[in-house]
Amino acid sequence: MELGEKTRRRLKVKNELLRQCMGEVLGTFVLLMFGCAAGAQVKTSRETKGQFLSGNLAFSVGVMSAMYLCKGVSGAHLNPAVSLSLCVVGQLPWKKLIPYSLCQVLGAYLGSAVVFFVYYDAIMEYSGGVLTVTGQNETASIFATYPSDYVSLKTSFLDQVVGTALLMLCILPVTDEKNTPAPDSLTPPIVAAVVLGISISLSANCGAAINPARDLGPRLLTLSAGWGTEVFSCFDYWFWVPLVAPMLGGVLGSLLYIFVIQWHLPDHEVDETKDQSGTAELKHRKYPFEEKKEIIGHKEVRL
Amino acid sequence: MELGEKTRRRLKVKNELLRQCMGEVLGTFVLLMFGCAAGAQVKTSRETKGQFLSGNLAFSVGVMSAMYLCKGVSGAHLNPAVSLSLCVVGQLPWKKLIPYSLCQVLGAYLGSAVVFFVYYDAIMEYSGGVLTVTGQNETASIFATYPSDYVSLKTSFLDQVVGTALLMLCILPVTDEKNTPAPDSLTPPIVAAVVLGISISLSANCGAAINPARDLGPRLLTLSAGWGTEVFSCFDYWFWVPLVAPMLGGVLGSLLYIFVIQWHLPDHEVDETKDQSGTAELKHRKYPFEEKKEIIGHKEVRL
Amino acid sequence: MELGEKTRRRLKVKNELLRQCMGEVLGTFVLLMFGCAAGAQVKTSRETKGQFLSGNLAFSVGVMSAMYLCKGVSGAHLNPAVSLSLCVVGQLPWKKLIPYSLCQVLGAYLGSAVVFFVYYDAIMEYSGGVLTVTGQNETASIFATYPSDYVSLKTSFLDQVVGTALLMLCILPVTDEKNTPAPDSLTPPIVAAVVLGISISLSANCGAAINPARDLGPRLLTLSAGWGTEVFSCFDYWFWVPLVAPMLGGVLGSLLYIFVIQWHLPDHEVDETKDQSGTAELKHRKYPFEEKKEIIGHKEVRL
Amino acid sequence: MELGEKTRRRLKVKNELLRQCMGEVLGTFVLLMFGCAAGAQVKTSRETKGQFLSGNLAFSVGVMSAMYLCKGVSGAHLNPAVSLSLCVVGQLPWKKLIPYSLCQVLGAYLGSAVVFFVYYDAIMEYSGGVLTVTGQNETASIFATYPSDYVSLKTSFLDQVVGTALLMLCILPVTDEKNTPAPDSLTPPIVAAVVLGISISLSANCGAAINPARDLGPRLLTLSAGWGTEVFSCFDYWFWVPLVAPMLGGVLGSLLYIFVIQWHLPDHEVDETKDQSGTAELKHRKYPFEEKKEIIGHKEVRL
Repeated sequence: MELGEKTRRRLKVKNELLRQCMGEVLGTFVLLMFGCAAGAQVKTSRETKGQFLSGNLAFSVGVMSAMYLCKGVSGAHLNPAVSLSLCVVGQLPWKKLIPYSLCQVLGAYLGSAVVFFVYYDAIMEYSGGVLTVTGQNETASIFATYPSDYVSLKTSFLDQVVGTALLMLCILPVTDEKNTPAPDSLTPPIVAAVVLGISISLSANCGAAINPARDLGPRLLTLSAGWGTEVFSCFDYWFWVPLVAPMLGGVLGSLLYIFVIQWHLPDHEVDETKDQSGTAELKHRKYPFEEKKEIIGHKEVRL
Repeated sequence: MELGEKTRRRLKVKNELLRQCMGEVLGTFVLLMFGCAAGAQVKTSRETKGQFLSGNLAFSVGVMSAMYLCKGVSGAHLNPAVSLSLCVVGQLPWKKLIPYSLCQVLGAYLGSAVVFFVYYDAIMEYSGGVLTVTGQNETASIFATYPSDYVSLKTSFLDQVVGTALLMLCILPVTDEKNTPAPDSLTPPIVAAVVLGISISLSANCGAAINPARDLGPRLLTLSAGWGTEVFSCFDYWFWVPLVAPMLGGVLGSLLYIFVIQWHLPDHEVDETKDQSGTAELKHRKYPFEEKKEIIGHKEVRL
Repeated sequence: MELGEKTRRRLKVKNELLRQCMGEVLGTFVLLMFGCAAGAQVKTSRETKGQFLSGNLAFSVGVMSAMYLCKGVSGAHLNPAVSLSLCVVGQLPWKKLIPYSLCQVLGAYLGSAVVFFVYYDAIMEYSGGVLTVTGQNETASIFATYPSDYVSLKTSFLDQVVGTALLMLCILPVTDEKNTPAPDSLTPPIVAAVVLGISISLSANCGAAINPARDLGPRLLTLSAGWGTEVFSCFDYWFWVPLVAPMLGGVLGSLLYIFVIQWHLPDHEVDETKDQSGTAELKHRKYPFEEKKEIIGHKEVRL
Repeated sequence: MELGEKTRRRLKVKNELLRQCMGEVLGTFVLLMFGCAAGAQVKTSRETKGQFLSGNLAFSVGVMSAMYLCKGVSGAHLNPAVSLSLCVVGQLPWKKLIPYSLCQVLGAYLGSAVVFFVYYDAIMEYSGGVLTVTGQNETASIFATYPSDYVSLKTSFLDQVVGTALLMLCILPVTDEKNTPAPDSLTPPIVAAVVLGISISLSANCGAAINPARDLGPRLLTLSAGWGTEVFSCFDYWFWVPLVAPMLGGVLGSLLYIFVIQWHLPDHEVDETKDQSGTAELKHRKYPFEEKKEIIGHKEVRL
């Protein structure tokens, strides 16, 4: 892909943060395109062209695709709760948290906007032309998440904390080179499987947003596209739950992983000498996919 | 597989383009066999032996299988929109665009023809012996795609542009050695997952052809097998949309990837110097399982 | 797993063919356990604990599991049509065809026998205690395959030929080191995906046996377990179709692959020198997973 | 993840068994969170937000996630039947069997407890506030497993033996470096697929616990959370079956694998000489993507 090498060098974005922001916007854009489009397909086809599982699968494929798309640029957080967690554990500088988060919301807004245009005819046909947030023909849930009627505020908050904690608890080891991680080049489908698992098991209460950007972006879209302020005010201004609870849950899940598992993982150097111990354990596999890492600048990326 | 080494050497097709064309014909043949057969199974069994998801899954498996089959010969484009996009980004010589595309249509025709024969009894039984394009017992949609009643021409065009753009946006990074790609030997299942994702989220409006050959080949088959000229004339000669819109969408998606992501990926200096040869090829990825990581500030981003 | 190293050395089966036969028996045993058990679960639960897709998925997982189980011993053919095809292309000595095939039938018989015992109560409850081959409460189709009513003999024969040809056409490239194969250690899930694809797209006519052992073994089980001779005589002695047609189809598919694709694949040695050609093609990736192969005995296994 | 290196060194659990126990607790915790949450979602949504397959998929994703989480610490047995089997084959010291098993039960209890709190509102709404073990609105089966009405004690015992034997028969080769295993870094999704296969094919009789901890933990939770002693006494104190039968089945399946397959695998001479150390460990696989091929007669078997 050598299209216009010279032009490329001229236009290449020199500012690292800007580059990363572009990556997060496009990644979250793709994530929401898959997810909301599947939601629209299932709802407007009245489940004849897909079922509940389709929406779960689409978010899963969206995560995989978005990760391959922007992992090389921005790390593919796609989720302010992930970015915050990585700040807490020291993998992302705090000053990048706000820009990352805003870009994720922007990408989510744009992705759901495209879905709105592509499914405009279908939504009009399904809803009879009236865009509502509640009732039998509501279409707002194609985009943002809303709680089930029977769920109390407390439970829905717990639900989002638990879901996001589970997310971080499951994806941190997949990329932790001290643990027994997946091959770096295959983390996207593995993380996608985790997201699928959470979607099918923790979405009954309030839709498994577990991602403030995935929820706020489409909610702003519905606000600006004709659903009215009810998208924010409904369920007693419930919208803040998927914004706040995932941030808390993500951090809790990350700390749980670090305190209970990561800190106690065998150090690899030490292991070498200890391997003679004769214990009958499942030893730590060394590095089956033995990734050679590059030295960039002055710091070696530790194997 | 040493069957007749001598014969092999004698019969080996020396002309590269001819070889590639044979690959594309057989690959698209396999793709359509899976896809149309699943469509036939779901429809003629009245959804007792599969549901909407089956058709999506079958196209996904078809893409995977076709890629393993002919990637080594022709690159496994399987789709004129993919071939055109690769011409635009300089990975395929323009003079090969027409032969590739024609072969893809031919393979699609042959694949759907085999499905027609295998499911002939079932189609006759389901349709009462009358092959129609519309109405409750229509069977034309087993093969080509048709729009939903409520979809305007403009929306269906947008739908195909967006679907194909999303396709290219998601599969280019999976094979881009400058980015963080999948292992070369595992791109087929990854691309298959992307195709599944698009099938379940963007097929409500008009069937997610996102591939002129996948649509035209089976449409020609139905024309020649007894469905009549209505397969082209119905919905006000709508058939041109899945021929034209994917070509535009594929290019747009590719350029979006290149401008927003690829141009700004960190250079891998060693590669750069070795790649001055001026050829416009997809180079061999050097260490399939190696991932180049960026240092952000003083810490590395791992996720 | 060093359990009883001495005993092991004493009991190790020295005869290679016997070892391979044991592998094929156990592999096909596992395949049929998954497949028939899922069939029993779906039918006896009246689709409340799974649907048509479950049976397809179970055969797919069965293939994957059986391949990991016995690939290292016998090559995991699991299917006389596969064994015959490999004889034709020179990868299995002809003298092993009959032993392999018999063992596959035996394994299939044993696997379905276990399923019969595990699901005995369920089958009795579902069928009202009468084991029949046709009618609303038939349970024979849990085990062997039977054609749909509307399918002519000719069509069902074609169906089995096409299904098995597609199988070989799709799995040969996945393991062909001249092509762009999957990593050897991951061929089982890839082949499993192909089997899933065929199951969901080519099982409407007559159940997608595409494997004489998978069909004959369970049919013999039903004969001996109380369903009577009707399992052979029904549909005008149709049972021979899934025995004969797959053998023909497997060979046809293999030859199609060899003649159209394999013979024309670039030779790797030659490629090295040709790589300067400046053509703008997707070159043949060399060996991303670069497998180091061992020399066993006197012959080097060609990379 | 360099959070508090000093603190880490101070707090690192020095006792290996304690570390392993922590790993098993957290791993089984995650497994049950996925599995029971999906069960709760399917049941309380009256199958509108998922179907039977969702529960199967969730346990599968749970196994994958739990394995990545604690494989590096404890080997990720997650199941007393697996631990016992590994004791029998010499991969785990017998003295660790009880601690491992207790921790697995504890993790399962905690995981299902979290699900109970998250789905409390939903369970109350679904059950009308009365927590019952039988009847139309029963909710106990969200957590522990119960037999179908028609299943005899003998059959349900056989069912659990067979299911767990199949589990061990399928996962041992996936990690056996003498066989043709999956890459170490990708065993979690492969094992997850096996678990999915067993869930969809052997869960009709009594829910496919095939894991005493997965069953006892949630059963204790329901006992302590208000379902009463009926969770143990129902079906004539059936609860002991998924505690005892899997232990037997796991050992049988492991021995079947070892006697029929493993003992007869070709020796890889270099390995053998180096492995004389007498330790009973699962050695590191040397070349994850390398496969040793046998020569059969004068040709190699490739498939």
